[in-house]
Amino acid sequence: MIPTPYLLYLGHSSDAIGIKTSRGLAIFRPEICVGEFRHDDCPLTLGLPRLTIAEGAAAGARTLVLGIANSGGTMGADLVEDALAALDAGMNVAAGLHQRLRDEPRLAARAAELGLQLFDVRDPPADLKVGNGYARAGHRLLTVGTDCSVGKMYATLALTRGLQARGVTADFRATGQTGILIAGGGVPVDAVVADFISGAIEALAPARNDDGWDLIEGQGSLFHPSFAGVSTGLLHGAQPEAIVLCHDPARTAMRGIPGRALPDLAECLDLNLHMARLTSPHVRAVGVCLNTSTFDAAEARALCARTEDRLGLPCTDPIAFGVDPILDELLCLESSARSTIASH
Amino acid sequence: MIPTPYLLYLGHSSDAIGIKTSRGLAIFRPEICVGEFRHDDCPLTLGLPRLTIAEGAAAGARTLVLGIANSGGTMGADLVEDALAALDAGMNVAAGLHQRLRDEPRLAARAAELGLQLFDVRDPPADLKVGNGYARAGHRLLTVGTDCSVGKMYATLALTRGLQARGVTADFRATGQTGILIAGGGVPVDAVVADFISGAIEALAPARNDDGWDLIEGQGSLFHPSFAGVSTGLLHGAQPEAIVLCHDPARTAMRGIPGRALPDLAECLDLNLHMARLTSPHVRAVGVCLNTSTFDAAEARALCARTEDRLGLPCTDPIAFGVDPILDELLCLESSARSTIASH
Repeated sequence: MIPTPYLLYLGHSSDAIGIKTSRGLAIFRPEICVGEFRHDDCPLTLGLPRLTIAEGAAAGARTLVLGIANSGGTMGADLVEDALAALDAGMNVAAGLHQRLRDEPRLAARAAELGLQLFDVRDPPADLKVGNGYARAGHRLLTVGTDCSVGKMYATLALTRGLQARGVTADFRATGQTGILIAGGGVPVDAVVADFISGAIEALAPARNDDGWDLIEGQGSLFHPSFAGVSTGLLHGAQPEAIVLCHDPARTAMRGIPGRALPDLAECLDLNLHMARLTSPHVRAVGVCLNTSTFDAAEARALCARTEDRLGLPCTDPIAFGVDPILDELLCLESSARSTIASH
Repeated sequence: MIPTPYLLYLGHSSDAIGIKTSRGLAIFRPEICVGEFRHDDCPLTLGLPRLTIAEGAAAGARTLVLGIANSGGTMGADLVEDALAALDAGMNVAAGLHQRLRDEPRLAARAAELGLQLFDVRDPPADLKVGNGYARAGHRLLTVGTDCSVGKMYATLALTRGLQARGVTADFRATGQTGILIAGGGVPVDAVVADFISGAIEALAPARNDDGWDLIEGQGSLFHPSFAGVSTGLLHGAQPEAIVLCHDPARTAMRGIPGRALPDLAECLDLNLHMARLTSPHVRAVGVCLNTSTFDAAEARALCARTEDRLGLPCTDPIAFGVDPILDELLCLESSARSTIASH
């Protein structure tokens, strides 16, 4: 486990999407974030106190979280200098970059010298097994998407908290670096060796018999030409009883693939259900989550209503409007699934 | 490139499936195999001269190929001893095991000391990019399967040689360790980090403008709960103009998953075509390859005929009966695809 609380790093970032890991922590785990560190040229803020490295350490921060994504996932010299300063101030350092902290010799040496830790949350766990797809006990929900970065993590967290608020045991199962830092654990599925994708997810959400739910963060999209393999293995490993489709109605092209249109929502749902049946024959869709942050409230409500009518499923923006309609559908589904099992 | 010729290692193996890499080399590249090395308790043979390590070296072998698969892909002490003996005799050593040769300290040290090389063909290439799915020039065929280990590599090699025999430029593109040793290059797609599956295949079979074909070795199956993610990314990265479905009619359960039935052939073809259209909208199936090695010739011919009638596609056993019917279909397809393009 990564020692908390955190000081969140923004550095020199000027790209709002690039700081999504830091922002996710500020939104979903504010109680473990003492502040944000940013240089004078950084126009962004998470609304947390702006602290220097020394002030962060004095405020009790035990880990500097490099919650930014540089182009290519690499570390610039400035970022290494800031991380060294954090070590010198007695903090551990965590990051979800492709390039590992421990592979930067100066960081590795300084951390060892000072008895501090470097956390590369994109390291997949050792000793993964291949998946087997055998039916396993427990309730599992997976978020799937029309594209990458359409709000699957936010939706999964909102659904988890919604269930908990209703007194249902529910656990968020993280599959990306931001989710892993929020949850304190998980599997960075995009960094797993290809043979082990579904097996990694079977290990992340093993059989459970407490009537609780595992809510598994989806990744990519079956329709994304870069990442559909990850999404397929994730779907099979998750063996979900329920899926929720996530979509960004403002997106005009698949992320990173200019010119490629997003799939139709109904087609996307159908293919996800079809593929999911390989390991979860009774899988059902229980809702749609839209990221309507670029629309005004009336437009957003109208979009949700139209989507709901068209797909015959509850549709909401989990951040703007909450997830109650989806939870109602999910918990009904749970009861009906049980009566089906009982009647066999 | 791995120095040839090879001495093929069988060791103490008694499992015919376990020696499939050595056997594949003996069948498809006999001209680069000087002999086989096996211990007295090994009941298997490839039909090559049985040579000791010293005899192999004397016969000119430049590399000992550890073409066997132990359970879990690990190296036993006896295998390490034999590899050390090969180094001492002046040979390089190549293997496709999950456990790397270079991670065995005695092998690494001895090879360095003697100026010889260790080849871990399961190492994915460095600097892979994510796929993008953009249309690229060239003719590409991909073999897909109802399951793992149903003859996709054999079919791909037979199709490649069949095209070459007809005077068509054709290259075999290997995606597994046996294929890589046969071809002298390729991408071990099951060992690639999940994010890069489709990108690795785009790099393996880049755009070509010489009117020749890339014949890409498939892996796994969209219906295999362990490996469908690999198969999906491979399909998208291959962007095939044509697919050939491979099947083992004697198989009673998915490999490694007792109790799981194989998919219906028509259903398997349909899903492969459906998924392939994401990056190759005009993809077509051009044939079915059955591994009929466990049937007598009359049964095998009847099986192929029934499959052909049912699916409306040429069906053959590529080893027993050749691939001419599929090549006829493929080359017709090529002409019609061209006229379609010309008419747009």
